[in-house]
Amino acid sequence: MPRLNIKKHTICTLGSHCALQVLKGAKDEGFKTLLICKKTRQNLYQRFSFIDEIILVNEFNEMFNTTIKKIISRENLYIIPHGTLISDIKLSTLEKLQIPIFGNKHILKWESDRKLKQRLMEEAKLSTPKEIKNKKQIKNLSIVKLHGAAGGKGYFLAWNEKSFNIRCKKLIEKKIIKSEDDLYIQEYSVGVPVYFHFFYSPLKNDVELLGIDRRYESDIDGLGRIPATIQQNINLDPTYNVIGNSPLVLRESLLYDAYSMSERFVAATSRLVKPGIPGPFCLEGVYDNNGNFTVFEFSSRIVAGTNLFIDGSPYSTLLFNIPMSMGRRIARELKLGIKKNRLSELLT
Amino acid sequence: MPRLNIKKHTICTLGSHCALQVLKGAKDEGFKTLLICKKTRQNLYQRFSFIDEIILVNEFNEMFNTTIKKIISRENLYIIPHGTLISDIKLSTLEKLQIPIFGNKHILKWESDRKLKQRLMEEAKLSTPKEIKNKKQIKNLSIVKLHGAAGGKGYFLAWNEKSFNIRCKKLIEKKIIKSEDDLYIQEYSVGVPVYFHFFYSPLKNDVELLGIDRRYESDIDGLGRIPATIQQNINLDPTYNVIGNSPLVLRESLLYDAYSMSERFVAATSRLVKPGIPGPFCLEGVYDNNGNFTVFEFSSRIVAGTNLFIDGSPYSTLLFNIPMSMGRRIARELKLGIKKNRLSELLT
Amino acid sequence: MPRLNIKKHTICTLGSHCALQVLKGAKDEGFKTLLICKKTRQNLYQRFSFIDEIILVNEFNEMFNTTIKKIISRENLYIIPHGTLISDIKLSTLEKLQIPIFGNKHILKWESDRKLKQRLMEEAKLSTPKEIKNKKQIKNLSIVKLHGAAGGKGYFLAWNEKSFNIRCKKLIEKKIIKSEDDLYIQEYSVGVPVYFHFFYSPLKNDVELLGIDRRYESDIDGLGRIPATIQQNINLDPTYNVIGNSPLVLRESLLYDAYSMSERFVAATSRLVKPGIPGPFCLEGVYDNNGNFTVFEFSSRIVAGTNLFIDGSPYSTLLFNIPMSMGRRIARELKLGIKKNRLSELLT
Repeated sequence: MPRLNIKKHTICTLGSHCALQVLKGAKDEGFKTLLICKKTRQNLYQRFSFIDEIILVNEFNEMFNTTIKKIISRENLYIIPHGTLISDIKLSTLEKLQIPIFGNKHILKWESDRKLKQRLMEEAKLSTPKEIKNKKQIKNLSIVKLHGAAGGKGYFLAWNEKSFNIRCKKLIEKKIIKSEDDLYIQEYSVGVPVYFHFFYSPLKNDVELLGIDRRYESDIDGLGRIPATIQQNINLDPTYNVIGNSPLVLRESLLYDAYSMSERFVAATSRLVKPGIPGPFCLEGVYDNNGNFTVFEFSSRIVAGTNLFIDGSPYSTLLFNIPMSMGRRIARELKLGIKKNRLSELLT
Repeated sequence: MPRLNIKKHTICTLGSHCALQVLKGAKDEGFKTLLICKKTRQNLYQRFSFIDEIILVNEFNEMFNTTIKKIISRENLYIIPHGTLISDIKLSTLEKLQIPIFGNKHILKWESDRKLKQRLMEEAKLSTPKEIKNKKQIKNLSIVKLHGAAGGKGYFLAWNEKSFNIRCKKLIEKKIIKSEDDLYIQEYSVGVPVYFHFFYSPLKNDVELLGIDRRYESDIDGLGRIPATIQQNINLDPTYNVIGNSPLVLRESLLYDAYSMSERFVAATSRLVKPGIPGPFCLEGVYDNNGNFTVFEFSSRIVAGTNLFIDGSPYSTLLFNIPMSMGRRIARELKLGIKKNRLSELLT
Repeated sequence: MPRLNIKKHTICTLGSHCALQVLKGAKDEGFKTLLICKKTRQNLYQRFSFIDEIILVNEFNEMFNTTIKKIISRENLYIIPHGTLISDIKLSTLEKLQIPIFGNKHILKWESDRKLKQRLMEEAKLSTPKEIKNKKQIKNLSIVKLHGAAGGKGYFLAWNEKSFNIRCKKLIEKKIIKSEDDLYIQEYSVGVPVYFHFFYSPLKNDVELLGIDRRYESDIDGLGRIPATIQQNINLDPTYNVIGNSPLVLRESLLYDAYSMSERFVAATSRLVKPGIPGPFCLEGVYDNNGNFTVFEFSSRIVAGTNLFIDGSPYSTLLFNIPMSMGRRIARELKLGIKKNRLSELLT
């Protein structure tokens, strides 16, 4: 067998979301690194010496134009998908793509379709927020979401039919929605938000918890700094736009359940969306005051909260003897796949 | 003198709270590691390669059954106590135990008895919350606690007699308390919570600040994300159940006082509870807007907030040239005790 | 050329703010370290082995008395300025000082003078909070500040003329201000606070983002833990006294703009305050729910939030192969300046 020359393998991603972490991790594992970068952001990415090659585009969807497609179609190049790839490239385009994508690209549509998402979470026996079928049934604090909305845009809170109607009417007036039917209602999970970063290795057949964060959202996470008596006197419409992330550790007694959830999720994906979920995923939810976790969302690829742990996290430290970011973990799995000639289990 | 073979010494703890950190630190210092683990959690702990040996039990109190007791009674085995040991094993059992426990096991009852705790804090000249002897004297925001309650269970806020009575009545109806006498009242410390992680080394005769955190409690730390105008329309009963921790650093100008508090605390324990407090302890309180610290609690053993710093903290970095978790610091002190034949100063 | 002996060069600072980080970083780069320390804090600073020499004073302004001034006037000694130097030593004294200060000491007065500060931020085309010229024009939530106040002392929120008058009257009664004229009014930036730690290297002619934090302020950051219904029943006067800091990472898509702001700021300083801003600076502001950043403040020297990253940050990890604190980065720039004989570009 010829000796492995990892430098002949390239890890490629789009310049946004967690590209720095992904390419830094790839370089740390010895890969060549390639970034597809918007011209408007070249000044950011050219600062980092671990990026070997930058392809400039006007929009990310140009990556499938003939010239660029040819470059990224070269042998031994692997694309790492992240949130921006998903939001900027049509799923149907990705599905047809001949270039190897790390992880299971077929699961991405389960992440973006509310009903498929719910089905997968139920298959994994995750506890999810109770759905409120009709506004007349709103009795507790509820969160109202837009079908297919990105991030937390347009979300609002309601505690009865009247409060629902007031906000719904506003969204219609602003032409953000056409009618009430564009909305769906979930019981609000009272508690504290927690985001788990998992990595499933098909080659080791094991799940690893690599980090935990909470999001830092504008303007909802600044709200508590405005006294209640003042909040009543001003007009506030809290939003949930993710600005960043801050690190957390969890009570150790909750880790067992967290690992169980992740294993059930891996098993559920392998049943419903072949070949399952090689690589990173995230379970996102709220711990209530009894220590029970309600999952309101999953991500079937690397999440931006992992950017906190480019130099390792308390959890990665328990598993590895070197600083292991999620980006580096991906590269390491790919390297192992190359060595063991098992790449096909990691790519779609 | 024979050469030290640290591999013949075992560090042992219960599988919960901060066991991963403690055994990782022990392994990093060269010890053999042993975990007493509930069968239901085996799947978590068997993931970690730094755990040499796992003894499975149904309940932690089985550790004193003949078979297991024999195993952990072997020569050169040291038990590291943490929150779960204290909550699951009777203090009277620990007191009588012949197996060496790291730190001063006699101080644990001072931590769990409100009057002893208060006495120790006063001996250390720590500023503590003002006690309100009678509900008629509630004039400012106050926190009402249950005698001997674990965590923040049942705690509530009151700002006058009437608000006290309403919540008190509810607790009686729910049979959480029998009467008002099961409650005690403290003035609420308005400000921001801070938890200090200290280590006292009898061998170096010095205190070290190794980290600072704040707790992440459900659902009180999610409360600020609910607008005031909505809080008024729904029924909320905030609780203080610890879910995790997040990291902090403190203004450097406050560190001098923090160290002074820790030294007074060490001195106070050495006067009141021989042999004092070798090892980790935590001072827990609130900084008001003048930068004054009110201590509402101490822990006389390692706290779970140290799990943030398994790979070191900004403060441990100032003191050590390697990533020094609290768990590793314990192991290092034990190693020094073995080397210098001064173990008796570290164990009870 | 003689071989560089960095041990013959001394980095000196005052014992407060970020002195530990600065001297640890200096030592890591091979410098001799000197601390000017209040006698009352000797017990803190003598704990740290990276401090080679401590000069004790009663007050920091004694550092310009003959004896001490002679010591710190020795060859190859560089003073690192920080918040305490600025608050305890008169700017006019610093301006006249013959001892080399790292960075541009002439910019410090732009930081402390509200009008100069505003001019510099406008020159850098930073988006700043709208000024409200007259209390009758308060229509949205506004923050009222004291001219030349340190920290957030005396700041309050107002949402109309009446709410302004009530709090203003109180401040006059308490003799904190003489009249309304001591106050100025800005529109409150609704969103989440973010603090950027930048380093400008004149020798590399490049800006580096080394970390991001948010402040932890008493008692405003504890406010959200008090239910709205209770806040209404008690008397609260929220304050903004910095107690500490907690770490953040930002959405990667926001980093491009962050770097652009920093570059415009560097360019603006080089036009308005020669020789510009060699070394650390901080842009401080709020992200609104559209991801737009309003800068309410800058610091033209190292900020205390960098104490979070004594062992490196996710951002420094992207740029350096070793843990790079801001303190160490300063030392490294000085070392390069010595090597390249370009110290004059780094000192004033």
